[in-house]
Amino acid sequence: MNASTLGTSVPQVNAKAKVLGRAQYAGDIQLPGMLHAKVLRSPYAHARIVRLDVSQALALPGVKCVITGEDGPQVPWGVHKKERLTFAKGVVRFAGEEVAAVAAVTEEIARDAIDLIEVEYEELPAILTPEESLDPDAPTVHPGRVNNIAHEIRYHRGDVDAAFAQAHLVHEATYTTHAQYPGYMEPMATVATVDADGRLQVWTSTQSAHLVRGRLATVLGLPVSQVRVIQSTTGGGFGGKIIEDANSLVAGALALRTGKPVRVVNNRLEDFMAAPSSLPERITLKLGMDREGRIVAKEVRIVGDCGAYSGLAPEVLHVSAMRSDNMHRNTNVRSHATVVYTHTPPHGAFRGFGGTQMSFALNSHIDVMARKLDLDPLQVHRINAIEAGQTSVHGWKIGSTGLQECLTQCTEAIGWKDKRGKLATSGTRSRGVGMAAVMHVSGNRTIGNWDGSTVMVKLNEDGRAIIHSSEADMGQGAQTMLCQVIAHELDIPLSHVHITLPDTDSSPWAIGSLASRVTIVAGNAAIRAGQAAREKLVTLASQLLEVPAEQLECAEGMVRVKADPSRKLTVAELARTHIWRHGGEGIQVTGSWDAKTEMFDKETIYGNISPAYSFAAQAVEVEVDTETGQVTVIDSYVADDCGKAFNPQAVHGQSNGAAVQAIGWTLYEQLQMDNGRIVNGNFADYTMPTPDSVPEMRSGIVESMDPIGPYGAKGASETAILPGAPAIANAVFDAVGVRIHDLPITPEKVLAALRARRQGDTHA
Amino acid sequence: MNASTLGTSVPQVNAKAKVLGRAQYAGDIQLPGMLHAKVLRSPYAHARIVRLDVSQALALPGVKCVITGEDGPQVPWGVHKKERLTFAKGVVRFAGEEVAAVAAVTEEIARDAIDLIEVEYEELPAILTPEESLDPDAPTVHPGRVNNIAHEIRYHRGDVDAAFAQAHLVHEATYTTHAQYPGYMEPMATVATVDADGRLQVWTSTQSAHLVRGRLATVLGLPVSQVRVIQSTTGGGFGGKIIEDANSLVAGALALRTGKPVRVVNNRLEDFMAAPSSLPERITLKLGMDREGRIVAKEVRIVGDCGAYSGLAPEVLHVSAMRSDNMHRNTNVRSHATVVYTHTPPHGAFRGFGGTQMSFALNSHIDVMARKLDLDPLQVHRINAIEAGQTSVHGWKIGSTGLQECLTQCTEAIGWKDKRGKLATSGTRSRGVGMAAVMHVSGNRTIGNWDGSTVMVKLNEDGRAIIHSSEADMGQGAQTMLCQVIAHELDIPLSHVHITLPDTDSSPWAIGSLASRVTIVAGNAAIRAGQAAREKLVTLASQLLEVPAEQLECAEGMVRVKADPSRKLTVAELARTHIWRHGGEGIQVTGSWDAKTEMFDKETIYGNISPAYSFAAQAVEVEVDTETGQVTVIDSYVADDCGKAFNPQAVHGQSNGAAVQAIGWTLYEQLQMDNGRIVNGNFADYTMPTPDSVPEMRSGIVESMDPIGPYGAKGASETAILPGAPAIANAVFDAVGVRIHDLPITPEKVLAALRARRQGDTHA
Repeated sequence: MNASTLGTSVPQVNAKAKVLGRAQYAGDIQLPGMLHAKVLRSPYAHARIVRLDVSQALALPGVKCVITGEDGPQVPWGVHKKERLTFAKGVVRFAGEEVAAVAAVTEEIARDAIDLIEVEYEELPAILTPEESLDPDAPTVHPGRVNNIAHEIRYHRGDVDAAFAQAHLVHEATYTTHAQYPGYMEPMATVATVDADGRLQVWTSTQSAHLVRGRLATVLGLPVSQVRVIQSTTGGGFGGKIIEDANSLVAGALALRTGKPVRVVNNRLEDFMAAPSSLPERITLKLGMDREGRIVAKEVRIVGDCGAYSGLAPEVLHVSAMRSDNMHRNTNVRSHATVVYTHTPPHGAFRGFGGTQMSFALNSHIDVMARKLDLDPLQVHRINAIEAGQTSVHGWKIGSTGLQECLTQCTEAIGWKDKRGKLATSGTRSRGVGMAAVMHVSGNRTIGNWDGSTVMVKLNEDGRAIIHSSEADMGQGAQTMLCQVIAHELDIPLSHVHITLPDTDSSPWAIGSLASRVTIVAGNAAIRAGQAAREKLVTLASQLLEVPAEQLECAEGMVRVKADPSRKLTVAELARTHIWRHGGEGIQVTGSWDAKTEMFDKETIYGNISPAYSFAAQAVEVEVDTETGQVTVIDSYVADDCGKAFNPQAVHGQSNGAAVQAIGWTLYEQLQMDNGRIVNGNFADYTMPTPDSVPEMRSGIVESMDPIGPYGAKGASETAILPGAPAIANAVFDAVGVRIHDLPITPEKVLAALRARRQGDTHA
Repeated sequence: MNASTLGTSVPQVNAKAKVLGRAQYAGDIQLPGMLHAKVLRSPYAHARIVRLDVSQALALPGVKCVITGEDGPQVPWGVHKKERLTFAKGVVRFAGEEVAAVAAVTEEIARDAIDLIEVEYEELPAILTPEESLDPDAPTVHPGRVNNIAHEIRYHRGDVDAAFAQAHLVHEATYTTHAQYPGYMEPMATVATVDADGRLQVWTSTQSAHLVRGRLATVLGLPVSQVRVIQSTTGGGFGGKIIEDANSLVAGALALRTGKPVRVVNNRLEDFMAAPSSLPERITLKLGMDREGRIVAKEVRIVGDCGAYSGLAPEVLHVSAMRSDNMHRNTNVRSHATVVYTHTPPHGAFRGFGGTQMSFALNSHIDVMARKLDLDPLQVHRINAIEAGQTSVHGWKIGSTGLQECLTQCTEAIGWKDKRGKLATSGTRSRGVGMAAVMHVSGNRTIGNWDGSTVMVKLNEDGRAIIHSSEADMGQGAQTMLCQVIAHELDIPLSHVHITLPDTDSSPWAIGSLASRVTIVAGNAAIRAGQAAREKLVTLASQLLEVPAEQLECAEGMVRVKADPSRKLTVAELARTHIWRHGGEGIQVTGSWDAKTEMFDKETIYGNISPAYSFAAQAVEVEVDTETGQVTVIDSYVADDCGKAFNPQAVHGQSNGAAVQAIGWTLYEQLQMDNGRIVNGNFADYTMPTPDSVPEMRSGIVESMDPIGPYGAKGASETAILPGAPAIANAVFDAVGVRIHDLPITPEKVLAALRARRQGDTHA
């Protein structure tokens, strides 16, 4: 017996704190003298600020500070393109853009003061669609950006034209996807203050404390060491809390200006306007297949809409364009992808990071072509799937893949063989099944030439451990995973391991939670940290027991002689003695791990960017009401190849949550815009799936035991969101024979398609 | 040029925060829902608690919790003897002992509730002096402690009797010393709370976060890992805030009981009752000297009074008995020291840690005997002083000593040669000069078999550093010293180094600030941490510049080729690249150092307990008003051998502060007791020296460049308090010919002695 919980379902280590309401989110923080801030946002998609008068706001009793683009931070920010000011200056580029902020003694006064700021705008013509953006006569969102292009990718590998020419079947179609709001429980929130030494101290809801620190320092003109960022308990991120919103900058700027603690908590409407939503794309996909369904050529054209500021959208575009190429054996690929500016709220990182968009197109396309070839799409997926040991068209080295098993699991679970094309219609209700297969990264060498992490462990004299890591837990389970690793490596109970929230002063450098990187990268770092701690214990035990280290084992909370377990010292005794002896010191060690991957090369765009790749497949059964057009998911099973499930319950949670988020995107959620302005920025009108709108979600775990992953594990947070939309679209086709190319699959579109099909039938 | 501030006077790194009122002391902490606690203390020195009724207190609106000995923590605490409960149970043993505590929504309500607690005491006979304690018929303060003896030390080295028999002069006298209240600006203060995960989190004013953590865990029944202690800015400690008071235990117990933040801040009267004051001792000293003043034999008998609980008093007693033996070449020493319980507030650790008491006796004695031998005591000190390279009678290895130079400096400064015995009397005012010489440790292997420290440095990508250490700065400058070391090792500006307050979750294990250990122990650890960081920088620079590491130097904020300084990389560039590269990681390193000293052996009491030894000498000029008996210090010069002064201004601050504290103890401060109760527990009646009662303090630095100390440095916080009392007593004798054996030297005692001398003269 050992104490390890690896592979066992355990509650999240921070679950109790959350359930009992004790977890401290940024918005819960109360500091003496704390001010409350509100942000004035542009009501126009595009306008010139003609006059901005804050005098009445400043005169309101209780108002401590008003800050605008004129007197606010003048250093522009942005992930790659430094193009956005904390507060708009001269011109606003989207409805919702930060124009000014007020800090006051209460939130109510701050809100009232916002209303007292007089802004005179001269409304300007707004570009609201990528088509308008690309019009050569269109005005530019940012001066000097030709055709409003924020980023463009072109690649060509193999001989696409020749392959198309030889293909048995070529099919081309265009798909469009819409923006999804991240919809986390906790909106963006920050409390910033100036500490006793004049340093800026920030608690914020984030996926990356160190990236936030770096941006705050740059924009606010401080050395990074003068900024301390502590990740407060974070209630969901889904990509929206990486680094694309201004919340922490507003708080930081106001704290520096006032010298007081300042709380900036978005309400839901503000969050809808401020958070990046996912990147809408128009994807034209052309595939060539041989008679057996093998993809022999692929051509992709994408136009994405990043909104007014590009943020992470260029990276998202890369993923949309390229990632799915790597899941297939096909070596002839050509792509031209463009992301353009519009005068709309910024779009960027979102769970799946561009994968959902292309997955919709590609899996829909495969279904269409399989039907044309009279093949089961399951077989088409199988025949095309890349295998472990292979290197993909873009140089990705597939160390492990459980895709075949995922395909088996989900189709068997859903009753694929018996149901596909065979489900009976009952009155106006038709049922059908659909499926999709996807891949994702587990880490990505993208931000800089590093995809590493360092984990620090302090082993206390009670034999318990405290972990410091800057990898963020925003609900996905990173903290639990790290605790499981350390508990496993030291073979102590999980309850004996505590993990602190990221704190840039004390936690080691880490990139944070994105690209499904934490389990594989920080998990491996944690193994090394645990090993380093264990080595110290064993070395000391070897001295004390006078037994060579190799004859000892660290197990069950002690170090003991393998051949005579009665000769032992507890971890507590050893940790204590490690201090209290000649040359002693407390055990406080770090472990680092950096993926041996290749930095994204802008020229070749070739190379193994991730240490491992996750796969998933999903099959669904839907019911379509042909009278109302309503699509209902009846059953869903997503099989997730996460390498090894540390905590199956957590993987199921991720898979099911992701699958529900995919259902929302596919069927229910849609940002309604009026002249560039979000008009349904609340949870009553922005209809995220409720429990009664989804079936009992089912998911399966496939353990492909990745050779590089910690104990074989890979990322499991994002993959499962990828297949939902096309699986549903394909099921809708299976049910009622209409193909929806444009998300979301609204009743109106289904009815229209049914009508068109009937008219087509009539015409036939 | 380099950026090092070593040897330069710089302001304390935390001075600005303190001066601007920004530093956060424990009492400044405000947490949402925080309760305020007050402690009910025994009014009797010894009594049985017959009845304790908290019902009325509990019924007072706003009261959230009342805790007593019956329902409070049942685990006794104490440094060595676990003999004290957080709240007295059944019996109280000193006036001021904690009987109950109330937590309420305001401090006023808590205070009112304290008044509503009904306690019926049966007063018991109280032992108020050590003489009573040692009476075989006396009751015992603690059951089972024979003769009320808390601790006893006996040793005999050499042949004391034979040496006395051969001595030219033998003199014996008895001296008594009184308790001094530490008198820090900030009374004991703690805020404790239960964090989101149910862990106890404590901010407290302390000299040792880790010792506080350990005691909280033990007494409150938690694993240490479930307790997090953060040292808040601490406004003075002087030994009183090591681990002998109950403040943090009260806060911790109430926080656990209520689940809410609880603030416990002593007011000054409470602090007088709760803080350990210094150990009163009755010292009988017998010295034998040869004709030239060489000490050839020494016999010491000490009875100390630890009060109701022994705390650190046994360790203090060891110092009183033994330490001064090591400053002389004499090898014949015999000692019998006893510390006994009385029903008085506990006495224990205090700056100098027992050294002041024996210094008073020994330096007075040397002055007496020098006069008898018609020698200048300066010469007696010189002839007896141990030298560098010698091993003392107790096995202490003297690596460095600047005592001869200290003696020279202070006597020259004061005009010793011209003034001793030669100062004119003006009316009723007589002047005289006196001097004394002392030694102290720099570290002490006493708490366990470890006297080490670990310092962690995080080097940020702006080339600046953040230090984590658990060594406490309570005003003495530990934080500045550590910052200076790291700035020096990396050759970056001092302003580019930030140090955090000790936090047991993240700061490495350290014992804390006691035994003048921090500069030498943590200073050496910091050098190693700085070297480790530098090595990482140089290794990386070597790779990047393609130059062997040994041809590189880390200087002026960069690593450069020694032979071609134009080839360079800044520390910032290197720190950044250390992350962003293949196999990268943030630079976060630790350095540990443990003194190669010997653990205090209870049998032999022999061995080198400290890595280095500090020396000091002081000369003063006093004026005695023969009409009033008032003694005024006219001039004072203390020369401190601190090895190497990192920060001369800080050393002078320590020396001058210590010398003033010695003046207070010698002339002004006296705890007035009425039946065991402190009756002058406030700064109006407990008369600490005010600026108008001391001269402009003068001090000198002697740099003996210790071979083990960091850059030659030794401790400088305590030594300078040791010589003040006997220097003044000797000066009083020089002025008016009376010898005061009993501290403090009050006008009444001086007048009485003058009267006795006149009567003696009359009789003569």
